[in-house]
Amino acid sequence: MELDLAADPVTLTRHLVDIESVSHHEGPIADAVEAALRRCGHLEVVRRGHTIVARTRLGRPERVVIAGHLDTVPVNGNLPSRLDEEAGILHGLGTCDMKGGDAVLLHLAATLPEPNRDLTFVLYDGEEVASVHNGLRKLAESEPDLLAADFAILMEPSDGVVEAGCQGTLRVEVRTRGERAHSARSWRGVNAIHAAGEVLARLAAYEPRQPVIDGLRYHEGLNAVRIRGGVAGNVVPDECVVEVNHRFAPDRSEAEALAFVRDFFDGFEVELTDTAPGAMPGLDRPAARAFLAAVGGVANPKFGWTDVARFTVLGVPAVNFGPGDPLFAHKADEHVPIAQIRHCEQVLRSWLTAPLPEGPGA
Amino acid sequence: MELDLAADPVTLTRHLVDIESVSHHEGPIADAVEAALRRCGHLEVVRRGHTIVARTRLGRPERVVIAGHLDTVPVNGNLPSRLDEEAGILHGLGTCDMKGGDAVLLHLAATLPEPNRDLTFVLYDGEEVASVHNGLRKLAESEPDLLAADFAILMEPSDGVVEAGCQGTLRVEVRTRGERAHSARSWRGVNAIHAAGEVLARLAAYEPRQPVIDGLRYHEGLNAVRIRGGVAGNVVPDECVVEVNHRFAPDRSEAEALAFVRDFFDGFEVELTDTAPGAMPGLDRPAARAFLAAVGGVANPKFGWTDVARFTVLGVPAVNFGPGDPLFAHKADEHVPIAQIRHCEQVLRSWLTAPLPEGPGA
Repeated sequence: MELDLAADPVTLTRHLVDIESVSHHEGPIADAVEAALRRCGHLEVVRRGHTIVARTRLGRPERVVIAGHLDTVPVNGNLPSRLDEEAGILHGLGTCDMKGGDAVLLHLAATLPEPNRDLTFVLYDGEEVASVHNGLRKLAESEPDLLAADFAILMEPSDGVVEAGCQGTLRVEVRTRGERAHSARSWRGVNAIHAAGEVLARLAAYEPRQPVIDGLRYHEGLNAVRIRGGVAGNVVPDECVVEVNHRFAPDRSEAEALAFVRDFFDGFEVELTDTAPGAMPGLDRPAARAFLAAVGGVANPKFGWTDVARFTVLGVPAVNFGPGDPLFAHKADEHVPIAQIRHCEQVLRSWLTAPLPEGPGA
Repeated sequence: MELDLAADPVTLTRHLVDIESVSHHEGPIADAVEAALRRCGHLEVVRRGHTIVARTRLGRPERVVIAGHLDTVPVNGNLPSRLDEEAGILHGLGTCDMKGGDAVLLHLAATLPEPNRDLTFVLYDGEEVASVHNGLRKLAESEPDLLAADFAILMEPSDGVVEAGCQGTLRVEVRTRGERAHSARSWRGVNAIHAAGEVLARLAAYEPRQPVIDGLRYHEGLNAVRIRGGVAGNVVPDECVVEVNHRFAPDRSEAEALAFVRDFFDGFEVELTDTAPGAMPGLDRPAARAFLAAVGGVANPKFGWTDVARFTVLGVPAVNFGPGDPLFAHKADEHVPIAQIRHCEQVLRSWLTAPLPEGPGA
């Protein structure tokens, strides 16, 4: 399917949603996006794997990155998209996280040949899986110049309100061990799955921290996201692995968060498998302040880890601003209000076409 | 490799062990066994799938089935076989369960052209997995005449002592459900893996029954043999499944055992996936008494489910009698004392060559 980026952003959102793009399978959507961007004469386009960068080269005094990921979590009976015109809601996998935001981004890329700031549009793969697969991470490490900017906006769902900072995330495997035996003489073995009951009991009793930072209240989490164990239907199993995802507020470093998790599972084997730092809200920075003022002055905390943290590491102030209530991300009934798609598009269009204020980053 | 059935049974055991034959992959060992049996002119051989039946047709007044399964549980760093000559121990996957018994069976098949009773040798596949795959079950259902006999001996490991009866086995899936959510906002979902903690806690607290039947003390068991759950590394999972194996003494029917399990997991979803009945010891039957007397008069209870129960259903009295301590079945350090292989072979050879006692089944 050929994508029409000039179509209205709601129609474009539907088209993007209906190109299935579960993590590790972003090839078709990346092909479609790349082809459509290459048809825009005012953009310079490069592709790395399934990550696409499209830039204006107007010599403006400021450059802004606008970015979104192309992948989704696994299908959950929620494709293709379904438009409820009466309620003004678009349903389907990725409508909220984050093809509504991608559609706004792509529509602006195609229809703003002369913005007031130079723009770098980034569409990337592998955001919903371990960070080793993250296309933006790869780009930040291999070609950071492609991401150089004065400010960055991630189109992650934020209910059309600026969300600042983000929580960190880490994953560990908590492992119990036992001793195999034939299940008919189970008293001669030690059941590793039974031993994992205590791991799950601790998780069920977990009480999250909710620290307030720069006036924003964060909310941590500690969840088993996968569990596996077993050898055969008649063998007492000698190993059980609980994969745990910890989300931690940005006042804790990755090392501090890991220390908390190790202490929480004291007595069990804990192996770190994936980690990414949080980002402090950064609302004191000039570029963030300017954008925040332009869109109404209100900011919320970001609970989900987003690639805002990668821009923080590169020294680029960044915020989340996109259509969709993040509470519906990754749920079977994922959806986005079409009014929010239009709102985000209009706010950004105004900000990118108004005369620049005096002085850089004002 | 061509099997030499006339070789001594210990050497033959090694050869059988070194043909890897994990359940669902019995083709190569069945091919080798079939070819070797077909070289014995005194046997009539038929093959059904990976199950082989070889029979004498001497018109004797009694017929005895001698049976063994060809498959093993998964490899656990215990292949190929290793002979410790000094200790008189053969190590390796299947040495105990049950290629030592298979070797005795095959050696007798090849070297007893004129036994005192007609013999039916059965080697079959799919015993270590769900009963739907069991080659003996399939044969009992499709061609029960092939298994017609006055008595049956299963060469399952029994420490070279007659083991009578067997415990039943059933498997259920115990399922917990939750609601998916992004793990960054986990308080909006319900974690199904955390909910499985209570299932594992009950299992850890289980107290087994140990009823005494015909003077034999049985020992029940209730074990998680597998656990699975999880959608993606950043999703609160909406389902967790604990596969539980219950071993029950032969004084309970399958229906009674299932009722116990349902009650044990009261409040959770319980789905039956596999069931096989136990077998009462049956030591009061004439044929069982005669064999028991011939081998010394001692019997133990059988804890593991064995295909003895299938013969019980066909009306054929049956016992377990084979080399190897069943406590080492399915363990990484599985092994068999070579003296037990020789003992079983000699006991059976004597019983099958001595003059028959007066009267059938005396």
